[in-house]
Amino acid sequence: MSERKGFFITLEGPEGSGKSTQARWLVQRLRRAGRRVVWLQDPGSTPVGCATRQLLLHTTTPLSPLAEALLFIGGRVQLVEERIRPALAKGDVVVCDRFHDSTVVYQGYGGGVHVPWLDRLGRHAIHGVMPHLTIVLDLPTAQGFARLRRSHDRMERKTRQFHQQVRRGYLQLARRDPRRVVIVDASKSVDAVRAQLESLIMKRIHP
Amino acid sequence: MSERKGFFITLEGPEGSGKSTQARWLVQRLRRAGRRVVWLQDPGSTPVGCATRQLLLHTTTPLSPLAEALLFIGGRVQLVEERIRPALAKGDVVVCDRFHDSTVVYQGYGGGVHVPWLDRLGRHAIHGVMPHLTIVLDLPTAQGFARLRRSHDRMERKTRQFHQQVRRGYLQLARRDPRRVVIVDASKSVDAVRAQLESLIMKRIHP
Repeated sequence: MSERKGFFITLEGPEGSGKSTQARWLVQRLRRAGRRVVWLQDPGSTPVGCATRQLLLHTTTPLSPLAEALLFIGGRVQLVEERIRPALAKGDVVVCDRFHDSTVVYQGYGGGVHVPWLDRLGRHAIHGVMPHLTIVLDLPTAQGFARLRRSHDRMERKTRQFHQQVRRGYLQLARRDPRRVVIVDASKSVDAVRAQLESLIMKRIHP
Repeated sequence: MSERKGFFITLEGPEGSGKSTQARWLVQRLRRAGRRVVWLQDPGSTPVGCATRQLLLHTTTPLSPLAEALLFIGGRVQLVEERIRPALAKGDVVVCDRFHDSTVVYQGYGGGVHVPWLDRLGRHAIHGVMPHLTIVLDLPTAQGFARLRRSHDRMERKTRQFHQQVRRGYLQLARRDPRRVVIVDASKSVDAVRAQLESLIMKRIHP
């Protein structure tokens, strides 16, 4: 039986920041280091999460930022109860593509829902199961857009100004909670970003 | 232009209590009295509401009561913003099959989510747009089940004990807020229930 403690990492950042690429690498790196890793995405990774993902990202349904936030949080509650808590209890590393901070930043800073209220609600709903480490892949808004090749989803279609507010949100979260939220400059090369992640992870996880 | 004020009525009650039958009659009765009536169901009545309705009532997806509550509230926020507020602002009568109280009663009293927290969250999310009148069609649990002919949905498949808690919840809501929440004995004949609704509505709406 493993004596290792579970460790919960989330990847955050704007569209085009390379989250998926870096997440894939991170998962492989941790597995090579002998850790059992559960790789998730939020919304997603549970039956209800996949349904809300479809609803929230791939429809043109009218949806207010507050309704959006509640649907994201609802799906996340299920993700925490069904996947994250059990994995952490077994000592696994959980790597999750987006999580609570995305709601605070996209529907709060970006969408105008009251940030402290949303932050409090979101944490309470997930029973305080917050990441040990959150890596924000930071990128000037224009650069992120230029990198996107696939068709834009619902969030990606929002205005430039919205995405600037999102970036500001991420930077504020890092200022407020620097122990958990670390900003990584994603405008550098994939390898340079990777090297930064490597050193961050190895310092915090001791795999 | 009408000088009339909007009026918001919700119908609540357990499965098999006759909500749909009575709602249909109520809508016709109010229209005959010259009121413009918007007839809605919650979840439902908006694109996102129909999607969450499908997800919440007609799947066998694992879903915790808290996740469920947040998805219901998320859909309701959109219903209020997209349909209810605009209708009330125009002076219409809104008749809604289920609303906030259903979440308090099913996920709170029935599902074990902390009732005062859920009640506060739900009211805050819908900006306090609460019904002027809520009619609870009350029925002993066993009798409601016996009346159901169509196949049971997700909520209806829950245990007898769950539904007893739901009934207890409705009765408590009526005790706490007797001006808004009125219990009607739905074990009587359709016509007897109708007569009670008629007198209730005419006293409150002055159509």
